Amino acid sequence: MISVSIIGSGNVAQHLISAFEKAENIELVQVYSRNPTANFPDSKSVAITQNFNELQPVDLFIIAVSDDVITSVSDQIPFSNQLVVHTSGSVAMESLSNSNRKGVFYPLQTLSKTKEINFKEVPLCIEAESNSDLELLHEVASAISNNVFEIDSNQRKSLHVAAVFVNNFTNHLFQIGNEICDENRVSFEILKPLIFETANKINSLSPKEAQTGPAKRNDTITINKHLDFLSNPNHKEIYKILTKSIIDNGKL
Amino acid sequence: MISVSIIGSGNVAQHLISAFEKAENIELVQVYSRNPTANFPDSKSVAITQNFNELQPVDLFIIAVSDDVITSVSDQIPFSNQLVVHTSGSVAMESLSNSNRKGVFYPLQTLSKTKEINFKEVPLCIEAESNSDLELLHEVASAISNNVFEIDSNQRKSLHVAAVFVNNFTNHLFQIGNEICDENRVSFEILKPLIFETANKINSLSPKEAQTGPAKRNDTITINKHLDFLSNPNHKEIYKILTKSIIDNGKL
Repeated sequence: MISVSIIGSGNVAQHLISAFEKAENIELVQVYSRNPTANFPDSKSVAITQNFNELQPVDLFIIAVSDDVITSVSDQIPFSNQLVVHTSGSVAMESLSNSNRKGVFYPLQTLSKTKEINFKEVPLCIEAESNSDLELLHEVASAISNNVFEIDSNQRKSLHVAAVFVNNFTNHLFQIGNEICDENRVSFEILKPLIFETANKINSLSPKEAQTGPAKRNDTITINKHLDFLSNPNHKEIYKILTKSIIDNGKL
Repeated sequence: MISVSIIGSGNVAQHLISAFEKAENIELVQVYSRNPTANFPDSKSVAITQNFNELQPVDLFIIAVSDDVITSVSDQIPFSNQLVVHTSGSVAMESLSNSNRKGVFYPLQTLSKTKEINFKEVPLCIEAESNSDLELLHEVASAISNNVFEIDSNQRKSLHVAAVFVNNFTNHLFQIGNEICDENRVSFEILKPLIFETANKINSLSPKEAQTGPAKRNDTITINKHLDFLSNPNHKEIYKILTKSIIDNGKL
């Protein structure tokens, strides 16, 4: 049995709490929440504290808070030489307090409080300073996910940037699609099967192989028709730059 | 029983052939293929011709060819006053030959020869000059898909542009994600669950509600870290313009 406590009450903390409560080899000892009114919907048995000095020693402290307070929160853990990890994709492992052993436990997934997720499929990227700590993180991560990866800080940084492209920016393109539909009084529902298939396609083809459309074909007639059709200057600019990128890519 | 013939042998033609062969109320009479070596893997019984003059009269001719030859192909159908439709998202219904009754039968999906698809879920956007022709198209479309929409030419144009954003451009962002992974020797596989969840999320949230990430939070520290990290000037430019668009959108 590995004992774990979680510092934080946001999306990541809540999904980790749910996942650990279902895990067999993990004892979730305490959750620290600054916010006394935080909801822990799935948490039946876990002890919640608002006081760092009430934290008990455990095998692993997981800090799941905003990037900008990771360092200060890690400074407040009242122990030394314990294993303390954060869950951020973009913060260096070294940013954690020097009082304790450092590590990272980064779930690479978009987590919302309002949407349930099968945590077993969430990729967990782990990093630690020593092999023994990495082994412990591996054991904890494997208890809640089937996708565990040992990733160093530079690789994690690259994954975080790549995730912005494939998640944040992709979702923004969905929103632009939605805006174009609204402007022309067409239901966005009509586009949803295409969106799901666009994602599913990369199960069987690389994105490069899966690329289709007027830019890929360098079909300037259709491209110009589309640019004429778009009235929103922001949509037009994004259309131009992504079209150019696809055309240039085809020349490589 | 409605009799249908298809002109063309590309992706769309092949998927339509497969779908019609499974449909109960449709008799697929002939397929015209310019290309004698075209493969029709699912087609067991359909008669293939390479000669327009061998075409028999049917209730509906579906022209599934490249946009730039739709007009010339429609001129070669050796009949008058028959219902002739094309399958393009970006070509006007009026581009079809004046000899016959005009319509559109546009499957809004990304179709590859190498990837099977459940055609029942493909949205079919139909348009015709008369109510009776629209009814016939509705009957044919409903025989192969559960998602049939009556869409006028302007709406179809807007859907085609929106589809470029949510499919072509989204897939290009997947490719950039893949490139960033390759440059940093991380497996692109780690990002796939995130990609699938990004698409699935819009089943329960609007894209605007689903938006997350540093741009949404206007987190300039992380944004600048990412820009520093990106070495490819093209990736950097796309990162900047999409980040700006998300930030501006948040101010609306």
